Amino acid sequence: MNLAKEIIGWLAFTTSSLMLVPQVLKVIKTKKTESVSLVMFIFAVTNYILWTVYGFLKNSPQIYIANILAFTSSAIILGYIIYNGVKKRKEKQIHKTKEVNNLGN
Amino acid sequence: MNLAKEIIGWLAFTTSSLMLVPQVLKVIKTKKTESVSLVMFIFAVTNYILWTVYGFLKNSPQIYIANILAFTSSAIILGYIIYNGVKKRKEKQIHKTKEVNNLGN
Repeated sequence: MNLAKEIIGWLAFTTSSLMLVPQVLKVIKTKKTESVSLVMFIFAVTNYILWTVYGFLKNSPQIYIANILAFTSSAIILGYIIYNGVKKRKEKQIHKTKEVNNLGN
Repeated sequence: MNLAKEIIGWLAFTTSSLMLVPQVLKVIKTKKTESVSLVMFIFAVTNYILWTVYGFLKNSPQIYIANILAFTSSAIILGYIIYNGVKKRKEKQIHKTKEVNNLGN
């Protein structure tokens, strides 16, 4: 029984640390994040910080290594979502000022 | 020290089980999944199944409850990604047959 627990634990550790990598690669490649949830990745970053601290408190490398990797991935994705959001807002602002100027002329 | 571990453990449990909910709500609302990674959610579903089994083997409700919730959320998102992928392929197919027919006329 213990062996099963060990194997599943290591498998779960591997999928946990790699899970976000495909999303990171997709966001870096496409630069697109419209359908990715900002709130989810704020939760995700918080979640992985908590599990990392928990891993250190429990002195479990399995937990804190997986969660440092997952934290890094989610922080990169969150960065892209925020960057795209700011960019979109600026474009809207420029668009509005152009409209106002056109009305003025 | 144990109290800190307990508190952080419960906080991490909460963010783990709720983390995917904003993405589920966004996908259900917008029906859009272009920038969401299919491979990530295949990993995620696998990941949460593994952690759920691990939680049962360790007899830890904290682990298996959080991961059953996260499994449900990731399965819903994966369903939408696959549904949208199939729909897109069908539309492409229809578009192609129309083009071929037009060439034929």
